[in-house]
Amino acid sequence: MTVAYDGTDFAGWQIQPGVATIQGALVEVARKITQERILVYGAGRTDSGVHAIGQVAHFRTQSALTPQQFQRAFNALLPPTIRVVHCEEVGPDFHARWQAVAKTYAYRIWRGRVVPPFAHRYVLHYPFPLDEAAMAEAAGRFVGEHDFTSFAASSGSEENDRDRNPHREVLSCTVVRPAAPPAESTWASSPPECAAAMGALQRFFGLGEELVCVIRGKSFLRYMVRKIVGTLLEVGKGRLTPEDVTRLFALRDRSKSGSTLPPHGLCLVAVEYPEPWRI
Amino acid sequence: MTVAYDGTDFAGWQIQPGVATIQGALVEVARKITQERILVYGAGRTDSGVHAIGQVAHFRTQSALTPQQFQRAFNALLPPTIRVVHCEEVGPDFHARWQAVAKTYAYRIWRGRVVPPFAHRYVLHYPFPLDEAAMAEAAGRFVGEHDFTSFAASSGSEENDRDRNPHREVLSCTVVRPAAPPAESTWASSPPECAAAMGALQRFFGLGEELVCVIRGKSFLRYMVRKIVGTLLEVGKGRLTPEDVTRLFALRDRSKSGSTLPPHGLCLVAVEYPEPWRI
Repeated sequence: MTVAYDGTDFAGWQIQPGVATIQGALVEVARKITQERILVYGAGRTDSGVHAIGQVAHFRTQSALTPQQFQRAFNALLPPTIRVVHCEEVGPDFHARWQAVAKTYAYRIWRGRVVPPFAHRYVLHYPFPLDEAAMAEAAGRFVGEHDFTSFAASSGSEENDRDRNPHREVLSCTVVRPAAPPAESTWASSPPECAAAMGALQRFFGLGEELVCVIRGKSFLRYMVRKIVGTLLEVGKGRLTPEDVTRLFALRDRSKSGSTLPPHGLCLVAVEYPEPWRI
Repeated sequence: MTVAYDGTDFAGWQIQPGVATIQGALVEVARKITQERILVYGAGRTDSGVHAIGQVAHFRTQSALTPQQFQRAFNALLPPTIRVVHCEEVGPDFHARWQAVAKTYAYRIWRGRVVPPFAHRYVLHYPFPLDEAAMAEAAGRFVGEHDFTSFAASSGSEENDRDRNPHREVLSCTVVRPAAPPAESTWASSPPECAAAMGALQRFFGLGEELVCVIRGKSFLRYMVRKIVGTLLEVGKGRLTPEDVTRLFALRDRSKSGSTLPPHGLCLVAVEYPEPWRI
């Protein structure tokens, strides 16, 4: 299943007694649908408050329901803040976590003076000047295989609390400005005030005056994306230089890098699998 | 002030004791800022659950604060679901309600099979077939001056509970499909997976697989926009014909038109004023 969620009201992915979690909600619904003791496994354990548009999860079932029937049943029983956007049958060897070969995260930084009321759950607000060229240069320095001790929580990975290997490979790391919403001329066949209204709606509801840090990697240490983007923000402010990124790798000291940014700007965008499991 | 809000958690615009309303929140904050007994007047009284990106409101004050200082103070004290997106000084004759010459509303109907978790508060979900050509033809029949008795609540207007004149002028009424988000080639300078990620984000957070009914009018009766769009939906389903719209005007019977759609798909997009108050 490909799962999208608004993480605002959940204590993260991982099931925990007594609190609302994404995995907990999926397990509960899967058991209700199948009457089996189902477990649901996710590709990555997103933290409390982190969103997803492309989380991947799998479960084993004896059920004769088709993937489409499962998708409809899940979406009928889940809260509207969790949606199964795709569902397909995979072989018995598939594992959402262990067979993932890459994950892509996006961190949204709102640059405008006012955060629209429809975006405040999904962006970090930073309306002050940033040196975007320096940020782009610093972003490039994260690409490749490195010891990420300086850019992660004190221990653990997204996949495993006891993981002590701090080496990870970042496949790409970029800072982009979303393309402007379609010009009003796109609605040229409509009355001008309708075109203006559509442009205004799209600016308010879509991606707007913001920077997005997009990071793709094989796997990530805990807090690694939020620490990397926190460091890019310090570079943007001029408190660190792009060269400092290289020095920080060598230092292996998490106190010298940027802070761990708040979770609500972060979104798990996609998880990739090798063929024949490709989703 | 131009005010945007997510109406989900508010009992509408109008101030009422004991419940959270937009006007109530603005009045409370205006009084806190100025220490004056301020009243805040809005261009239209949006119903419970209705959103706005371009509501207009005014108040009178003796304060020496500049519009920019007011804007900052409001946004610092208001909840993030209400934002002052613009603030300017106007002459003593300005009145947000009485000087408005046109208002534009948009009603969003989500056509895709799954509503993204980030959109469910702002759209009506209708994934079944619709005859869009018939809807467009029916929409055109609402334009002009008509007796809107068949397309409104039993009495009252947006402006005045005791208003019994059912005549209104609709300036334009169209059914549009939002332009697709910018093609992934827009991010051609980024790695392909970054471009793909940005495209996916924009599809999930922006306007997507939907129809938007955009209605501009001088003023509106209570529930008029939601009744008009409810009727357009019945035309789309084939339960009413475009010609029925013309017959319904003559019937003056609100039980024969489409139902009043739920409020959460509706958004007040813009309010227009004659020069020199133009915002």
